[in-house]
Amino acid sequence: MRREYTRPIRLKNLYIGGNNHIYIQSMCNIRTSKTDEVIAQIKALEAEGCEIIRVSVLDIDDAKAIKTIVENINIPLVADIHFDPRLAIESIKSGANAIRLNPGNIRNESDIKEIVELCKEYRIPIRIGVNGGSLPNRQIPTPEAMIEAATYHISILEKYDFHNIVLSLKSSDIDIATEAYRLASEKWDYPLHVGITEAGTLFSGTIKSSIGIARILDLGIGNTIRVSLTDDPIYEIRAAKEILNNLKLIKNVAILTSCPTCGRTQYNMIPIAQEIEAFLHKLKSNIHVAVMGCVVNGPGEARTADIGVAGGHGEALLFKHGEPIRKIKEEDIIPELEAEILKMIEQKKNEEE
Amino acid sequence: MRREYTRPIRLKNLYIGGNNHIYIQSMCNIRTSKTDEVIAQIKALEAEGCEIIRVSVLDIDDAKAIKTIVENINIPLVADIHFDPRLAIESIKSGANAIRLNPGNIRNESDIKEIVELCKEYRIPIRIGVNGGSLPNRQIPTPEAMIEAATYHISILEKYDFHNIVLSLKSSDIDIATEAYRLASEKWDYPLHVGITEAGTLFSGTIKSSIGIARILDLGIGNTIRVSLTDDPIYEIRAAKEILNNLKLIKNVAILTSCPTCGRTQYNMIPIAQEIEAFLHKLKSNIHVAVMGCVVNGPGEARTADIGVAGGHGEALLFKHGEPIRKIKEEDIIPELEAEILKMIEQKKNEEE
Repeated sequence: MRREYTRPIRLKNLYIGGNNHIYIQSMCNIRTSKTDEVIAQIKALEAEGCEIIRVSVLDIDDAKAIKTIVENINIPLVADIHFDPRLAIESIKSGANAIRLNPGNIRNESDIKEIVELCKEYRIPIRIGVNGGSLPNRQIPTPEAMIEAATYHISILEKYDFHNIVLSLKSSDIDIATEAYRLASEKWDYPLHVGITEAGTLFSGTIKSSIGIARILDLGIGNTIRVSLTDDPIYEIRAAKEILNNLKLIKNVAILTSCPTCGRTQYNMIPIAQEIEAFLHKLKSNIHVAVMGCVVNGPGEARTADIGVAGGHGEALLFKHGEPIRKIKEEDIIPELEAEILKMIEQKKNEEE
Repeated sequence: MRREYTRPIRLKNLYIGGNNHIYIQSMCNIRTSKTDEVIAQIKALEAEGCEIIRVSVLDIDDAKAIKTIVENINIPLVADIHFDPRLAIESIKSGANAIRLNPGNIRNESDIKEIVELCKEYRIPIRIGVNGGSLPNRQIPTPEAMIEAATYHISILEKYDFHNIVLSLKSSDIDIATEAYRLASEKWDYPLHVGITEAGTLFSGTIKSSIGIARILDLGIGNTIRVSLTDDPIYEIRAAKEILNNLKLIKNVAILTSCPTCGRTQYNMIPIAQEIEAFLHKLKSNIHVAVMGCVVNGPGEARTADIGVAGGHGEALLFKHGEPIRKIKEEDIIPELEAEILKMIEQKKNEEE
């Protein structure tokens, strides 16, 4: 079932699934009970474009801290719980907007029942998160074994007539993950949260997640995504936005085209491209900007860009839609290009109104 | 036509196409006539895993410099020429192992003939590089317009009975590039050199290239690849290896699994994962290493890894295939894990012999 036909699941002020856009998630990597630090991290992630945040609940202090955290943030919060039903119950009562919990890991039937009833009462969904690395009985993580585990967890919730479910089937192998998500999309109408788990560091993890998540989204499935990186979660949001933008599945994210530089490049282009990229990350606009190495090929090759610079010797040519506008001294490239970008975004807005 | 059915094209000591593996390319970003610097850059790229190197030839000094460069490197060198037939001729005579040239850009028929005859005499191939941003008559870069341009360039060479051709169809839009490569694979049996052009900075360019190149390779096509980045070309090689490794299209590249860290992580894991990653980049082994945040989930989730560490408070647990081996003090994690990795690689080698 394609993503737009999945059952919409309410999460605070959002609906995951159906015709809604693909939401970007991240997870705090600070102990949840350190509320001030956690709130600061979530606010930074929110500002970057994070739409759903997850926190791990390792003890009762973490569960209780959720109350203060949700009061101080705007985006929905998912409490991540393993095994311990008390932590689930306390997290729900503290105001978690969803819990991530695999009901098959809760031993006591009455505990499961209590959690499900509480989720119904509080109208919050449960995300079942099957992880290839932690299947029951230490099974080898095949797509089929992951589907079997998901079937088991889902059946427990459905027995209590609970269908307010989001499902993930993460693996650190992109082939296994892709097939598991594909099978799940054929079997259930629950929205899918997509990710590649334990993907690695900023560099290799971004590559693995980009390939894996894009491949799954290319199947027409996936309603929320998380890029998992061994680094500051801010990069998870930036990478997620880039992935969605490349697949044309997100609005109002800028594109930076920049050439790899060659023997023809006569100005110090790499730091300029990096600084313009950081500047664009903060804007909510689909503007397309180019930073090119030379005036010979730059403006022509980047004429699909709205605006750009092409470097010469100690100066750069400013161009718009491939047409030259004026020269800029090398030291003024960054501020002048940034000012021109803001001006153009303003113009675009006015034209649209 | 799938990659293994393409016509093998000899490039110095390699054959591109047919049943040969997918070669990794990069391009120098230093003026070619600065021979010492260029040789040093190529040697560094070679050591990292670069198998084919391209240099731009902007003037006759660059063309002449190729002689010294090819004498001092081991991998094949491709001379990149635009418009000027003299530079092509001089590059061939200087010993370039291939030229990248679009014959339609050479105005004079007799010049084209001379270049083709020289390529036959020297037994070197021509790579035709169609770039979506620089189509004839400033056409809008559609996949069809790119195929039309390729058809034109190829027809010129085929008229002279020259079939020693490698083809690329790069665009900075991954949808356009994918479709152009797909169409080309249906139309010709020439090997394809795959890349996404002007992809951007290290961060966003890696994401765009990962998605685009993987999507094209997933079609079963593509015989060589280049990741284009606005940064040190060393990262182009690292990214290319990661992409191929994720698609299981390369041998002897290590995998690092590492979790995104969470509130449970009790040691300073990010720099450890980064340092182990850099260490693995230098090894030619398919070893699978894990750096995990906690002993609760780490060893189990990473049991498909050959070896790994999971952090505790001021120490880490060393595990092999998910089974605990021994504890390591935090300050000793990196050297001890590296030593264990080398030991395991040695053991694997002995077992294989």
